[in-house]
Amino acid sequence: MPTNRNRPGRANIPFLAPRLQKCRFSSPLSGVHFISDDAQVVLPSQLDEIKSFIAAGEALPCFEKAGPRRKIAFDPARLRCGIVTCGGICPGLNDVIRATVLSLFNNYGVRTMYGFRYGFEGLCSRYRHAPVRLTPELVADIYQKGGTILGSSRGPQKASEMVDTLERLRVGILFVVGGDGTLRGAQSIAEEVGRRGLKIAVVGIPKTIDNDIRYVQESFGFETAVTETRAAISAAHAEAASARNGIGLVKLMGRHSGFIAAFASLSNSVVNFCLVPEVSFRLEAFLKALQERLARSGHAVIVTAEGAGQDLLEEAHGRDASGNARLGDIGLFLRDAITRHFEKEGRPVNLKYIDPSYTIRSAPANARDSAFCLLLSHNAVHAGMAGRTNMVVGFWKNEFTHVPIALAVSERQRLLPQEGPIWSSVLAATGQPREMR
Amino acid sequence: MPTNRNRPGRANIPFLAPRLQKCRFSSPLSGVHFISDDAQVVLPSQLDEIKSFIAAGEALPCFEKAGPRRKIAFDPARLRCGIVTCGGICPGLNDVIRATVLSLFNNYGVRTMYGFRYGFEGLCSRYRHAPVRLTPELVADIYQKGGTILGSSRGPQKASEMVDTLERLRVGILFVVGGDGTLRGAQSIAEEVGRRGLKIAVVGIPKTIDNDIRYVQESFGFETAVTETRAAISAAHAEAASARNGIGLVKLMGRHSGFIAAFASLSNSVVNFCLVPEVSFRLEAFLKALQERLARSGHAVIVTAEGAGQDLLEEAHGRDASGNARLGDIGLFLRDAITRHFEKEGRPVNLKYIDPSYTIRSAPANARDSAFCLLLSHNAVHAGMAGRTNMVVGFWKNEFTHVPIALAVSERQRLLPQEGPIWSSVLAATGQPREMR
Amino acid sequence: MPTNRNRPGRANIPFLAPRLQKCRFSSPLSGVHFISDDAQVVLPSQLDEIKSFIAAGEALPCFEKAGPRRKIAFDPARLRCGIVTCGGICPGLNDVIRATVLSLFNNYGVRTMYGFRYGFEGLCSRYRHAPVRLTPELVADIYQKGGTILGSSRGPQKASEMVDTLERLRVGILFVVGGDGTLRGAQSIAEEVGRRGLKIAVVGIPKTIDNDIRYVQESFGFETAVTETRAAISAAHAEAASARNGIGLVKLMGRHSGFIAAFASLSNSVVNFCLVPEVSFRLEAFLKALQERLARSGHAVIVTAEGAGQDLLEEAHGRDASGNARLGDIGLFLRDAITRHFEKEGRPVNLKYIDPSYTIRSAPANARDSAFCLLLSHNAVHAGMAGRTNMVVGFWKNEFTHVPIALAVSERQRLLPQEGPIWSSVLAATGQPREMR
Amino acid sequence: MPTNRNRPGRANIPFLAPRLQKCRFSSPLSGVHFISDDAQVVLPSQLDEIKSFIAAGEALPCFEKAGPRRKIAFDPARLRCGIVTCGGICPGLNDVIRATVLSLFNNYGVRTMYGFRYGFEGLCSRYRHAPVRLTPELVADIYQKGGTILGSSRGPQKASEMVDTLERLRVGILFVVGGDGTLRGAQSIAEEVGRRGLKIAVVGIPKTIDNDIRYVQESFGFETAVTETRAAISAAHAEAASARNGIGLVKLMGRHSGFIAAFASLSNSVVNFCLVPEVSFRLEAFLKALQERLARSGHAVIVTAEGAGQDLLEEAHGRDASGNARLGDIGLFLRDAITRHFEKEGRPVNLKYIDPSYTIRSAPANARDSAFCLLLSHNAVHAGMAGRTNMVVGFWKNEFTHVPIALAVSERQRLLPQEGPIWSSVLAATGQPREMR
Repeated sequence: MPTNRNRPGRANIPFLAPRLQKCRFSSPLSGVHFISDDAQVVLPSQLDEIKSFIAAGEALPCFEKAGPRRKIAFDPARLRCGIVTCGGICPGLNDVIRATVLSLFNNYGVRTMYGFRYGFEGLCSRYRHAPVRLTPELVADIYQKGGTILGSSRGPQKASEMVDTLERLRVGILFVVGGDGTLRGAQSIAEEVGRRGLKIAVVGIPKTIDNDIRYVQESFGFETAVTETRAAISAAHAEAASARNGIGLVKLMGRHSGFIAAFASLSNSVVNFCLVPEVSFRLEAFLKALQERLARSGHAVIVTAEGAGQDLLEEAHGRDASGNARLGDIGLFLRDAITRHFEKEGRPVNLKYIDPSYTIRSAPANARDSAFCLLLSHNAVHAGMAGRTNMVVGFWKNEFTHVPIALAVSERQRLLPQEGPIWSSVLAATGQPREMR
Repeated sequence: MPTNRNRPGRANIPFLAPRLQKCRFSSPLSGVHFISDDAQVVLPSQLDEIKSFIAAGEALPCFEKAGPRRKIAFDPARLRCGIVTCGGICPGLNDVIRATVLSLFNNYGVRTMYGFRYGFEGLCSRYRHAPVRLTPELVADIYQKGGTILGSSRGPQKASEMVDTLERLRVGILFVVGGDGTLRGAQSIAEEVGRRGLKIAVVGIPKTIDNDIRYVQESFGFETAVTETRAAISAAHAEAASARNGIGLVKLMGRHSGFIAAFASLSNSVVNFCLVPEVSFRLEAFLKALQERLARSGHAVIVTAEGAGQDLLEEAHGRDASGNARLGDIGLFLRDAITRHFEKEGRPVNLKYIDPSYTIRSAPANARDSAFCLLLSHNAVHAGMAGRTNMVVGFWKNEFTHVPIALAVSERQRLLPQEGPIWSSVLAATGQPREMR
Repeated sequence: MPTNRNRPGRANIPFLAPRLQKCRFSSPLSGVHFISDDAQVVLPSQLDEIKSFIAAGEALPCFEKAGPRRKIAFDPARLRCGIVTCGGICPGLNDVIRATVLSLFNNYGVRTMYGFRYGFEGLCSRYRHAPVRLTPELVADIYQKGGTILGSSRGPQKASEMVDTLERLRVGILFVVGGDGTLRGAQSIAEEVGRRGLKIAVVGIPKTIDNDIRYVQESFGFETAVTETRAAISAAHAEAASARNGIGLVKLMGRHSGFIAAFASLSNSVVNFCLVPEVSFRLEAFLKALQERLARSGHAVIVTAEGAGQDLLEEAHGRDASGNARLGDIGLFLRDAITRHFEKEGRPVNLKYIDPSYTIRSAPANARDSAFCLLLSHNAVHAGMAGRTNMVVGFWKNEFTHVPIALAVSERQRLLPQEGPIWSSVLAATGQPREMR
Repeated sequence: MPTNRNRPGRANIPFLAPRLQKCRFSSPLSGVHFISDDAQVVLPSQLDEIKSFIAAGEALPCFEKAGPRRKIAFDPARLRCGIVTCGGICPGLNDVIRATVLSLFNNYGVRTMYGFRYGFEGLCSRYRHAPVRLTPELVADIYQKGGTILGSSRGPQKASEMVDTLERLRVGILFVVGGDGTLRGAQSIAEEVGRRGLKIAVVGIPKTIDNDIRYVQESFGFETAVTETRAAISAAHAEAASARNGIGLVKLMGRHSGFIAAFASLSNSVVNFCLVPEVSFRLEAFLKALQERLARSGHAVIVTAEGAGQDLLEEAHGRDASGNARLGDIGLFLRDAITRHFEKEGRPVNLKYIDPSYTIRSAPANARDSAFCLLLSHNAVHAGMAGRTNMVVGFWKNEFTHVPIALAVSERQRLLPQEGPIWSSVLAATGQPREMR
């Protein structure tokens, strides 16, 4: 799916993922096209950007290209791996678990794989969550289920405690599936591993239903989430169109980035207003535009990302267990503000408020996300086997890459309204005013 | 779908629908199997019940059988019809509008059909909602949309005002699509029509997503609603199973009758507790059973009808615009009670609360409901053409019937836990305690 | 779903199911509403029919009412049960296996349950298909899968060989899931059991995606099948409407009865011609009507049951392994006849032929069928525990009943065009000529 | 969705789209981010490729970047546009028609838009298909329908005849939606326009459900097609797993490129063999591998692209109306070959053959494809307004581009088994032998 480019700054270098140790084993894979360790994908794709690097005599910013390597860092016969899923659930988690386990088992011959329970808690012995032994049989059918068979939890745990567990179980590669906060946790594990001089690779698999991880042009679960918005938005439209001055208001995910709201609006042609965190608006201007729409058509459908209009709410207080800022609830705020406004105007509206987030994030992956999860996981396995660590598998310009975690968490991926084609098309599709200020 | 029989009491007689006037026109239908005006469907189906009527020398309670009549009460060439949809939206409303219009037009040759806007409001001139002229072209594709193209509203209007409109537009048959409250409104229209000595038939098409209209063994939209619960209940289960002490709590429709909650539990095998209005429970007993379930399995899924546990809430205050008792919100009550209880016990739970009602009721009809709406509407058209009035089309023992509105609204259809097979199978399927008292 | 009544003939008596032996054990069920052994459901529901029985002094034809009995025929602690699925696959088979196993295990406390593999073959030792031990864990999740986890096969096997297996494994109740041919097989097993004087109950669970088993007003999988036709019929319509003189031709199941084709036409408003086995037609008349439709609208959608128009084909030769007559393929016949006709007329058509049967019959059960399978299976378990044998669980006038197999297989259930409301509504919905002769 | 890169050859230059005339009008768009006419997207993304161009002193191959221009070539107030859809139907056609019309109308203010009927036929007056006047109202709801509301046809028409029509109707921009053959037709129109010195822009919108158009990294409808394969492949699996030696064989689209078969296999984890045009195989080796799979697991699921194994069939004879080679039917060939082989071996199999192509290609677009169609169409409109001609909108490295038609049709896009990650992951996912030779 086309997303706005987020141009790499030059200061973001280094772009290459750390390597744990020398690769002295031969890959058991045969007949595949091995990727050279020098293969790199150039970040910029615009001619003028590339030219300016060349003109300045600077190296082009590049990511290491993902894929199977001829030489690997571990002896598969002795290797033990672990996998952990953290944070909120997201379509495709079980696909990732399944594909990672099957690739390790079938392609590399790894026989010992632990599934840690309930996120990072499962890596801390004091929680007493015994890890699950993952086998091909156990994971064969799980891709049809939403959620994660390993369970999840939010929030960080002490790196030292987690590395203790990895040492005790003699884990060689830990696959960490999670978002921004989780990847920071993975980073701290990798650093503690480094301090102890251990040979444990930490490979991130980026999970963000909001699609807001930098250098991951699209993340698994995102397309399923957009697909799943159809039920809620159709419902909002049917309710709105069946009532006098009917308004359907749908709150979608997206704390920092409005990708889900924007693509939901592009793919559901009944949306009349799309509110995202990247584009601020004044309440009065919005209400005025809404009133005009009602006068014109008798009903309206509004989609808001949960992170939209934060400046309209009181200051957010504190941060949740994952370290994310606690945002006020824009959905309830808008519901009340709209209702009050039209009551005051003497034209009461019939507003239905829909908050489908659990239903969306718990859906099983659609066909596309299943395939994407499989490719992503295969590349994570290749990266781990090749001794990459403190990195996350990225996806950039249609190529899988290795991205240092430090770089991936340096900034959020966002819609770029002022320069990007997505937002222009959202405005064209909804017909909402370009500015509501 | 099998439902508990609700045995007819003898005092409910008369069972036959009023007839407006003599049928002096020949039906334009050709080659169909006309139903005799004497054809009746016997209400009881149990041998012992039937025997007891016979033994007592009493007439068997019967409904008039629905279907096309050889002689009809109106001249189709001059007939004008109206249709109005009232109350909350429900899957299949557009199918009903479509099939009614097409049957009047194609089968009987009626050329003038009005769609009244926004429920009974559309029948009162002071609201200034001009009626829509309904044509085959206009309704051809509407079955794929949820909601109602006519719009709807809640609450009664003055019968005299509505009959003024019918007189002014010279409407001969009014089709009223709605539930309990709406049918009472239709009854008052029919009574006013009678007082004025007009020839206007009032035919009800029963709409109750809750399946709670008496003598309507199953109502349109019900099966779609049960189907649509799958997304919410799967979501609740995925969330619950992915968290430590995870609880998924889903509130479904059902103010007076637990059919949706019961059938949702029968068709979604992940439900562990099903709470319905017909079976009261004590909070402590429920929490104890829930605690046992969590101890045993680590997570739980609870489905509650909106009308369950009303005695646990404060006294309901007042009635809404349709005259339904305002019930406390059992979903939020349970969410808070459960959370508090387990916090007090020192075992905090991870509860996700899902209230999918708008998404369910606004879905388009599934294949079965589409077919059912079509058959129901055809029978309503036949009834109206045959001059039946103050009646609603019933469905009993797999036969369409004519039910006097007075009888249909005399009592709610309910699950009969103490005697019926449905509730026993719900208990067997969920494994919940038979009594939580 | 409303279906045409198929009136019981008086000669069909006896209507009551055979009982294997005295019920001398107390049911372990507690708190359920037990059904009296005398409870019976009256077959006719029309007043005139009932009156004529009474006037003639004849007993009303009745089925035994299904449900749990206070006294049962087996000691659950020692009972071993078997289940076998035969014939073509059908939505809901795994739901039936699951609900039967869970009800035996959870409700009655039965601990030994065998799943016989690949239909009746699994009951014949010479095929060497070892039976599967069925446990609650094994069946917990299978309801989401199409097909049958036990496998299936067509065709009869020797009763003596099968009873040898039942004796050897000491099976007390055998649940046989299948259609007409399979039920005859079950009947021969029950007879052989009788000859040997064994205490083995044989309980049929009726499986017929075509809905053509007599006294089973609706069968599991039927509604899912109708739902699944939507994809094929929409495809046919999209293809037809996107081409000049486009024709979409869809062949659906239904060898002897046109229920699927009829309900598919009622629920998919784009169907213009519905052809069923119960209504014969002449090819020329059909082609003429089709030509008129094309001239009027530029495209057409045709749905044909596989058993339609058999008289148009050459004499069918022989019978398949299940003993069903081998029918010519009406779909290919029509495809070629239509193409030839319009070529000859100099107006070539663009015909797309769709035969979706495998995709339909292999779908998992929809919500309604899941619930129905569960109720059906619970009643089968109750029947077996109560020592009923040589019977099949029926569904009549919204009640589960016990039907002697001999009665169920005496005749097919069919659409009754000449007298029934379904066919009239099909004609009204499609607009096809009443007669094409 | 990640696809194999198909490296640009240097000889393919020029990469820039022809421009019809000077852009002397100001765009009516306001507040959007206009794209500079110099903006270009670099084709190669691998560091070593880019370096080799630089080292050789050659210009980097680039595409013009798509998007709105500040200056446009037409006066919207006087502009008339046309749109035509050609070839087989594909999910998203109606989305493209809708978004093109709405963007022209709402964003640019164009008021006259013609929809040509039945492909290129609609541009030839002798077919007498009057064009449809397209309005926002007419297209508002069509996105929920499969197929194309304009109709389609295969095969070329005379350029001179088509340009006559464009001249007569004074069309300024013609949008041509179609695949390889259609784009060649568009090219011939553009050339005839050039010969006549007219000011008519011809803008291609690439339609290929097979995803085989070069420089269009992903095409609309492809993801929906992959999603729709789930029903067929699940059916094949349910059938196969429910029978002894059960084999499910599914033929999918893909004459020249195996993308659909490959991604269907990646996203449906039950596929055991995936056969594509790009990887040849010997029948004996395939049958041997199949026999081993059956011996191991008792059933198998095979997916074949329609273009696979062509060397196994007799020489293809002739070309169809669109100029595509007529290929033998690999599905029927394999069905018969497999059946014969196992009969000869004395182990008869139970093979079910499924050919779902009409059901797949006639599905409405899923959420992702709807959004993609909208963005693609907006970019086509921008391109046409900016006077680009003889070009097609491409999508490369997540950017919309302008691709000269000559370049787009120079070669097919293919899976690159020998070097690409997709095929390696297919092999890993299916477990099929790397070589079947």
